[in-house]
Amino acid sequence: MPNPTAAILVIGDEILSGRTRDSNMHFLAQELARVGIDLREARVVGDRPEAIVGAVRALSGTHDHVFTSGGIGPTHDDITADAVAEAMRVPLSVRDDARAVLQAHYDRQGVEMNEARLRMARVPEGAVLIDNPVSAAPGFSIGNVHVMAGVPRIFEAMVAGLLPRLTGGTPLLSQSYRIMRGEGEIAGPLARLADDYPDLSMGSYPFQSGGAFGANVVIRGPDGVRVHEAMTRLAELFPE
Amino acid sequence: MPNPTAAILVIGDEILSGRTRDSNMHFLAQELARVGIDLREARVVGDRPEAIVGAVRALSGTHDHVFTSGGIGPTHDDITADAVAEAMRVPLSVRDDARAVLQAHYDRQGVEMNEARLRMARVPEGAVLIDNPVSAAPGFSIGNVHVMAGVPRIFEAMVAGLLPRLTGGTPLLSQSYRIMRGEGEIAGPLARLADDYPDLSMGSYPFQSGGAFGANVVIRGPDGVRVHEAMTRLAELFPE
Repeated sequence: MPNPTAAILVIGDEILSGRTRDSNMHFLAQELARVGIDLREARVVGDRPEAIVGAVRALSGTHDHVFTSGGIGPTHDDITADAVAEAMRVPLSVRDDARAVLQAHYDRQGVEMNEARLRMARVPEGAVLIDNPVSAAPGFSIGNVHVMAGVPRIFEAMVAGLLPRLTGGTPLLSQSYRIMRGEGEIAGPLARLADDYPDLSMGSYPFQSGGAFGANVVIRGPDGVRVHEAMTRLAELFPE
Repeated sequence: MPNPTAAILVIGDEILSGRTRDSNMHFLAQELARVGIDLREARVVGDRPEAIVGAVRALSGTHDHVFTSGGIGPTHDDITADAVAEAMRVPLSVRDDARAVLQAHYDRQGVEMNEARLRMARVPEGAVLIDNPVSAAPGFSIGNVHVMAGVPRIFEAMVAGLLPRLTGGTPLLSQSYRIMRGEGEIAGPLARLADDYPDLSMGSYPFQSGGAFGANVVIRGPDGVRVHEAMTRLAELFPE
């Protein structure tokens, strides 16, 4: 059975304006690789309802899972819950269990519930809450869309709670090999090796180091024996 | 006149597998903000022809400019030039000017031109070359799609050469203000302030620092006087 597929949708003007550098995409990519869910696409859109609705519909229709990051706080620019509900064509309202989680948190902190904070208890009909051990305001899963916070520490905690709920696949095994030659020299032999191993994926990632060109060649596949065999042949082609 | 819009398409399995953390998106976001081109969307897709073709067509049809990063080297997994030519429905072949640039570079280095290296001289019909001062192999612009290398140092050099060719707009001015209160407290007054300034965009970016919650509020707009006026009112609402 092929592995489940996934996309991540990062929501926030601050990423596109260059003000903030996103880290949630890279974190999620590593976590999904570990559990055998294939991340196929990542998108970043701004805080515009039509952009979020369009992206959620496109991605949820073509992937087994969509993970979103950002836009679920209490301020006027937090519109992700509204947009996801619209994309999934379900109503959105304050839900008692979400409100209770928030109320308990604010009671402990001695802070008043207000209209802005109550916005964070709004979830689409039929959603399952995602626990937020950091600041209480929950994320939620609706259909195959998993809606989480943008603050990295909260996003990471939500992913940790969510992933065990999802069915993973076979994690890809990978080995990498550093070759201090230009890719133009590596390309021919590597292409022939890749032809011999159609069950494996071979990628070449060039870099520059101290004025010299090199490449990291990464061989990936579900079968560790095959990966190791191909890597051994690669090392023979390009001895250190 | 509204600012030109743009999207960036980052191409490469290594980003989606979590092996490499992309930096080109963030670099380009900052450069475009400087010249007044509005980055509206970013996407990352893997080294699969149909994914690249689909994304290039979707993004080039809905934005004034599309910038791509990655997949233009000499190895078998470098398929961006082929996919972009297909997306734009033009033929792809080795072009004399691109070949001459490469040949001169390899002559200086005392390296042979080979089949793999010659792949990097293939450009779509009608393309304009983008200079690569680092390793010679050029990028290219075809229609509104600008195809560049994935290695950050080369991508950055290509962007530096390309941007002066494009017509920019009015750079957005922004000021930010750090408020050491939870967003739940900031949200109400901030929403009312945002209502008073429909020409400005106000974003609230929460963070956690030493166990306390705070938010950076960013006010952006083309008119510096308005931005300053709104920021002064914000500072009065939330004195330090």
